[in-house]
Amino acid sequence: MSKVLKIFKIGGGIIDDESQLRYFLGELVRIEGPKILVHGGGKGASQMLSRLGIEPQMVEGRRITDAATLDIVTMFYAGKTNKQVVALLQAQGVNALGLSGADGNVILATKRPVRTIDYGFVGDLNEQSVNTALLTQLLEAGLTPIFCAITHDGQGQLLNTNADTIASTLARALAGSYAVELHFCFEKDGVLTDINDESSVIPRITAEQYQALKAEGVIAAGMVPKLDNAFAALEAGVATVVIENALKINEPVKTILCQS
Amino acid sequence: MSKVLKIFKIGGGIIDDESQLRYFLGELVRIEGPKILVHGGGKGASQMLSRLGIEPQMVEGRRITDAATLDIVTMFYAGKTNKQVVALLQAQGVNALGLSGADGNVILATKRPVRTIDYGFVGDLNEQSVNTALLTQLLEAGLTPIFCAITHDGQGQLLNTNADTIASTLARALAGSYAVELHFCFEKDGVLTDINDESSVIPRITAEQYQALKAEGVIAAGMVPKLDNAFAALEAGVATVVIENALKINEPVKTILCQS
Repeated sequence: MSKVLKIFKIGGGIIDDESQLRYFLGELVRIEGPKILVHGGGKGASQMLSRLGIEPQMVEGRRITDAATLDIVTMFYAGKTNKQVVALLQAQGVNALGLSGADGNVILATKRPVRTIDYGFVGDLNEQSVNTALLTQLLEAGLTPIFCAITHDGQGQLLNTNADTIASTLARALAGSYAVELHFCFEKDGVLTDINDESSVIPRITAEQYQALKAEGVIAAGMVPKLDNAFAALEAGVATVVIENALKINEPVKTILCQS
Repeated sequence: MSKVLKIFKIGGGIIDDESQLRYFLGELVRIEGPKILVHGGGKGASQMLSRLGIEPQMVEGRRITDAATLDIVTMFYAGKTNKQVVALLQAQGVNALGLSGADGNVILATKRPVRTIDYGFVGDLNEQSVNTALLTQLLEAGLTPIFCAITHDGQGQLLNTNADTIASTLARALAGSYAVELHFCFEKDGVLTDINDESSVIPRITAEQYQALKAEGVIAAGMVPKLDNAFAALEAGVATVVIENALKINEPVKTILCQS
């Protein structure tokens, strides 16, 4: 029986609200055993870009990470947010260690190839991206790695990388050494059958049930890529994926996804 | 015979000049054995503060780190500069790991007490500040720690901390486990007898000779606090302190300070 490793991913919404962030971190402290936190960005970087008069570069509705944008997102994600989270966890006795993918070469990405759109300095991950040996060593030393959404290409270039992708790639890579629970935390209590009814949380969804719910149109829109990604992680060996409210991680309400 | 550990400190001048920074890092890669790099700030943070219209807070000629300033210096030091240095070293095969003092609780500071001046969010270090157990573990794992000049107070507060102080505190704390060589790198070739003559480098200074050179006024002004600090480190068990040009670390020209 492998040791359980819990990987939590939080998004920009909670990063932007310091009291919510502090509440979440206080709840995270109560989670026992080895754990990893992956945090997304938040609006701070965009606000800074606009204060500096740097126009967001958009192509076909997608934001492009040009060099000036990369500089600012690196400052926010790897500097401000990551160090704030680490310091707040240290204050509560969690031995947090902030990491970008470049630190310890822990996540090696490749710059997204230009097809129809040049996304700029954006990193894609693959099966070989994660330095599992070092991560396992850090976890065994009692450290709690805190990942920001910045990786590198191994050639000296930092890359902006989707935090959901980082979380699921870490989960898949570490599934060989741990029974991994991957927790996607957001502002809803779980996967809802009715988007307007917070009490309609589906407690448990298997891969088979997911296909049926998708076919019926019960699960649609924004949840589909998230859940496709989650079931792909389960297929790749991740033990459990949980979709839950970032403010209720220690409460029973949540959606647990499992293979069967 | 203890293993040799080399600690390098570079200042803001070289951080501000990317081609010089790359050159220094290329030379650092050639330094064998366990090593640590401590980097200072550079002008980026001040320029950003002025672009954002945040006035530098000065009291009696000393800069005050208020909350807005701390935010920006954390972004620059721990975010932009630290991650850039880490990524550039990774590209040359050095397994660099960027750290603030909060990461792994590796440097615990105390907020400078208010006497006549309130310096704001500035951290002071002491004999107990360094988590030597974790640092030794990281070094033994083949990692090269890269420190920025940000620490924390263990209560959730990040603190701006002098990079020279971080370097000498690390050196003193690790002197129990390693024969520590502490390298202060700057824009001169070493300690000069004539500030205007770059060829007047004193190759070696003992504690006794230093007192004489100070008394004669040969060493004066800005070098005195730097060298007082260096000789204090030697007295506390650091094996060697070297004062050298950041661009000539692999050349023989330098000043070696030693107890006797």
